[in-house]
Amino acid sequence: MPRNQLEARRGRPRDSRRDEEILTAVLRLLEEVPYADLTMAAIARSAGVGKPTLYLRWSTKASVVTDALVHVLAVEPFPDLGDVRADLVAGLRAMIRLFDTTAAGRVLPGLVADLHRDHDLIAAFDERYFQPRRASIRCVLRRGIERGELPAGVDVELVVDALIGPVYYRLLTRPGPIETSADDLVDLVLRGCRG
Amino acid sequence: MPRNQLEARRGRPRDSRRDEEILTAVLRLLEEVPYADLTMAAIARSAGVGKPTLYLRWSTKASVVTDALVHVLAVEPFPDLGDVRADLVAGLRAMIRLFDTTAAGRVLPGLVADLHRDHDLIAAFDERYFQPRRASIRCVLRRGIERGELPAGVDVELVVDALIGPVYYRLLTRPGPIETSADDLVDLVLRGCRG
Repeated sequence: MPRNQLEARRGRPRDSRRDEEILTAVLRLLEEVPYADLTMAAIARSAGVGKPTLYLRWSTKASVVTDALVHVLAVEPFPDLGDVRADLVAGLRAMIRLFDTTAAGRVLPGLVADLHRDHDLIAAFDERYFQPRRASIRCVLRRGIERGELPAGVDVELVVDALIGPVYYRLLTRPGPIETSADDLVDLVLRGCRG
Repeated sequence: MPRNQLEARRGRPRDSRRDEEILTAVLRLLEEVPYADLTMAAIARSAGVGKPTLYLRWSTKASVVTDALVHVLAVEPFPDLGDVRADLVAGLRAMIRLFDTTAAGRVLPGLVADLHRDHDLIAAFDERYFQPRRASIRCVLRRGIERGELPAGVDVELVVDALIGPVYYRLLTRPGPIETSADDLVDLVLRGCRG
């Protein structure tokens, strides 16, 4: 879906390799400089394109970084292992590992601050980054309800917040690795659903 | 305690009124401009002091904004109403109201991004902003354990994360009011503790 969205938005399919090179350059740069110090000029230089070419595709740093995060570090859907606890633990562990080991975790705090200044952009980021992950967790919970592992009346949106909220809270408010135990958090929340 | 810390750090007590005026000016400015657009020059101008006077007290924008948030919008401790659920619901509601109705909520996303670039500063912010609130919630949970409302083996740090994580997640990743229901979140987490 991100690929199709990208092409639909930009038009000509023959440009998609160049777009890919630019997004890869963004992620490479973010391994070296903090988001706040990244510039459009540095992105153009690193991708080997002119600034007009870059600006033709993306009008702001926040928009090209959002695309880089969404397109290249695609959100891994939570798995379907046939057991609600196993799905949630595996999905949360993968999410924590992604934040701890890739540019996604380092860039999000600065990006989130910039997104708050641009309502269109946060809407796009929400639609393409946060919502797909929430949708994936919703599916896990609905399968759990269908299998009778969770009560039918469970407040799915609240449970999604309770599962990913503590992980984002740790990521955004404290540098360094996220110490949250996926197992313990999932057990607490699942007991809460059933209790 | 914030007042004492301020005086201990700055020395001469006769300066405390001027400090107060500067911190009030910071909060007034943050009602009008986003954190990212705030400058030390604008703070000095608005407080009616020279830039050297301002820099003598605070070396960076992030440090004076942190002090403004901690000192003027003091963290309200969670109450002691004799019932763990009542304490948590009242405390979370007050926290959500603070974020929804004061500069604290609007300034935190930008400030958090800046804090990630300065490890000393995030340590100070953690010690003076996040930790007092966590300590206050820990007290609520310990009183609940003493009264037999919660099992003795409850993972207090995990429960604190589960209670405030979803609120910060909403605040930091989505503009507009925080829709989290304090009642529903507390009920989910307390069932998880007891289940």
